[in-house]
Amino acid sequence: MSILQIGAGGVGWVVAHKAAQNNDVLGDITLASRTIGKCEKIIESIKGKNNLKDPSKKLEARFVDADDVASLVALINEVKPDLVINAGPPWVNVTIMEACYQAKVSYLDTSVAVDLCSEGQQVPEAYDPQWAFREKFAQAGITGILGAGFDPGVVSVFAAYAVKHLFDEIDTIDVMDVNAGDHGKKFATNFDPETNMLEIQGDSFYWEEGSWKQVPCHTRMLEFDFPNCGEFKVYSMAHDEVRSMQEFIPAKRIEFWMGFGDTYLNYFNCMKDIGLLSPDPITLQDGTVVEPLKVLKALLPDPTSLAPGYTGKTCIGTWVQGIKDGKARSVFIYNNADHEVAYQDVEHQAIAYTTGVPAITAALQYFKGSWNEAGVFNMEQLDPDGFLETMPSIGLDWHVQELAPGQPKINILK
Amino acid sequence: MSILQIGAGGVGWVVAHKAAQNNDVLGDITLASRTIGKCEKIIESIKGKNNLKDPSKKLEARFVDADDVASLVALINEVKPDLVINAGPPWVNVTIMEACYQAKVSYLDTSVAVDLCSEGQQVPEAYDPQWAFREKFAQAGITGILGAGFDPGVVSVFAAYAVKHLFDEIDTIDVMDVNAGDHGKKFATNFDPETNMLEIQGDSFYWEEGSWKQVPCHTRMLEFDFPNCGEFKVYSMAHDEVRSMQEFIPAKRIEFWMGFGDTYLNYFNCMKDIGLLSPDPITLQDGTVVEPLKVLKALLPDPTSLAPGYTGKTCIGTWVQGIKDGKARSVFIYNNADHEVAYQDVEHQAIAYTTGVPAITAALQYFKGSWNEAGVFNMEQLDPDGFLETMPSIGLDWHVQELAPGQPKINILK
Repeated sequence: MSILQIGAGGVGWVVAHKAAQNNDVLGDITLASRTIGKCEKIIESIKGKNNLKDPSKKLEARFVDADDVASLVALINEVKPDLVINAGPPWVNVTIMEACYQAKVSYLDTSVAVDLCSEGQQVPEAYDPQWAFREKFAQAGITGILGAGFDPGVVSVFAAYAVKHLFDEIDTIDVMDVNAGDHGKKFATNFDPETNMLEIQGDSFYWEEGSWKQVPCHTRMLEFDFPNCGEFKVYSMAHDEVRSMQEFIPAKRIEFWMGFGDTYLNYFNCMKDIGLLSPDPITLQDGTVVEPLKVLKALLPDPTSLAPGYTGKTCIGTWVQGIKDGKARSVFIYNNADHEVAYQDVEHQAIAYTTGVPAITAALQYFKGSWNEAGVFNMEQLDPDGFLETMPSIGLDWHVQELAPGQPKINILK
Repeated sequence: MSILQIGAGGVGWVVAHKAAQNNDVLGDITLASRTIGKCEKIIESIKGKNNLKDPSKKLEARFVDADDVASLVALINEVKPDLVINAGPPWVNVTIMEACYQAKVSYLDTSVAVDLCSEGQQVPEAYDPQWAFREKFAQAGITGILGAGFDPGVVSVFAAYAVKHLFDEIDTIDVMDVNAGDHGKKFATNFDPETNMLEIQGDSFYWEEGSWKQVPCHTRMLEFDFPNCGEFKVYSMAHDEVRSMQEFIPAKRIEFWMGFGDTYLNYFNCMKDIGLLSPDPITLQDGTVVEPLKVLKALLPDPTSLAPGYTGKTCIGTWVQGIKDGKARSVFIYNNADHEVAYQDVEHQAIAYTTGVPAITAALQYFKGSWNEAGVFNMEQLDPDGFLETMPSIGLDWHVQELAPGQPKINILK
């Protein structure tokens, strides 16, 4: 058995560590990136932490240009993996899927291929480029598992679990995400600043009463009491799983909410007001042309650098309301991840950890034969039981909290 | 008679308009800049507003490289002006003074040559490069008038007036500056963003009980009720005239205070925290090297563009406390400038207006023979009466407000 992992950023870091800890099942591991030095640094960390479970298995770094299908196919044909995992940026999902199709190898990624904020790339069309591979993958006899992080990913498995075990009828699904950790910096992003800042300034889309609703960012807010983290303001945001849940789970309202502290939002609004969050190039007095967002990226701390000393927890979960045995029911299915525990385990912070652990949990389901049907699948479509049974042993546990039924008070801002 | 004006930015714009309105005394006007198009645009505005008092006098645009003494001397020898006015950036003061010395022509500027925040360029040493010309100017029989804007400039004339007419003994001098105008932008600077942002993040220096005190920016605050503008928070800041007043007026404390709204300070602090106010180059992912502060400059509105639609007033003045006829006395000598009135007069906003009007008022004192002694002079050293008699007719009036004697309550922050 063997896997080929593409991408050596924060998520790639955790995915590789978790793959190594499970290489008795996953086999040989090849890490590929445009920057081979980043792969080598990860391998060094894995060896330093003694995270290679079966030392007889290979762990190698390779160069790849993930924008180039031919380069990907050549590497896949040489490595001959059983599964290709894209742990790198989502904008190479499609080229990697095409390469997997051509080379007849199964595929797994952790977030959707689009930016969710540009025209034609917003929530309603988000999965179109990847769902276009459904027939090709089915014909080729290979499996594609899409969005196998935490959110998207585990939150959809939670929803599938709720449908299978906890409800007769689903009314509303709210995905809730807060990072109550403290990295000690005045302002920093937990993953690539460019991706993060684009994501959070786009319009939010939510599904309600049979149609998509579009609203400006940070204009729908509610307060939610997160287990072990406390009360946080969360804001409606565009997110991958709103689209896939809408496809596969009938509900009256489906919405994604992310917690932002007032301080974070103040920085965000200042930067937005002065134009620093724009990807559109500007010309400096000396003629230099730069994209403001790329300048911000260079100014902010590298998200990877936040991991040592990061304290506190995240809480991400799926809040489902509906009917069970004729009665209204409200449950919050969630995980708490701890930044310090994550660092102890894989020398990274909890944001990347909550994405990397589910990816390897999903890969194990594939290798065990329970998630290996031919075709392209989102996490809601797959049986949740084996996945949720496995995930705690990979590093993230989960809990079901019963809440008093009742719709949240949503505040409309501005 | 004739003048040579160097610089065609915001201050240059107003100085040229005001010179044109007084060309019956000042004579022919030559505007010189590195960008001749900026001079031509000013000339167009002067003609459009019918501001050339004596149309028989010349008004011409010329190129000059103000960093190059030889280029300056050549232009001066060709134009043969009676006075050279630097209405451009202060960092060319020294080359222009040297050129004036070589060509034996008098000189006037509106702010000090240093940045007031780098090592060796702070308040205590601020005038060293320009005071070094004292003997050369005296020997050459030419006059140098330094810092002839509003602040520095008129506020020092106010102090000299207080010494001459209102007090027997000076105790404290506080220069107070607030812009209570509204340009309608979320964030913008009233003059060059690069100069402005460097100036306001430097340590403050004030003179107290015989020595210089140095404190971080925005850590000394008081509230002051500005006539016709209202109560504002003002913060101790490094400023040119603190140095020159300390040289020429004996006082126990001399300090400069600038008003900043909470919103302005919030933007400032956000930008500072993320590193956007730094002049030190950073490297982007694609290898492009940029100075963050120059990126900010390119993002923010051009200060000149703020003028149309700018409403409200500024209030700048000198608050003097001391003894008169054996009794404690406290007076605030001030001007209110109105953004809309400034725009009506010269198609620019009040910040540039309050600098340009005093420069031409001072030039008129020189041409009338009252301020033309050989040597280099700051505004405190010159007789205030003629200047203050003239200034209202050039566009800015002034008032003396009696206050209840008593030292301000200074809040120490952070």
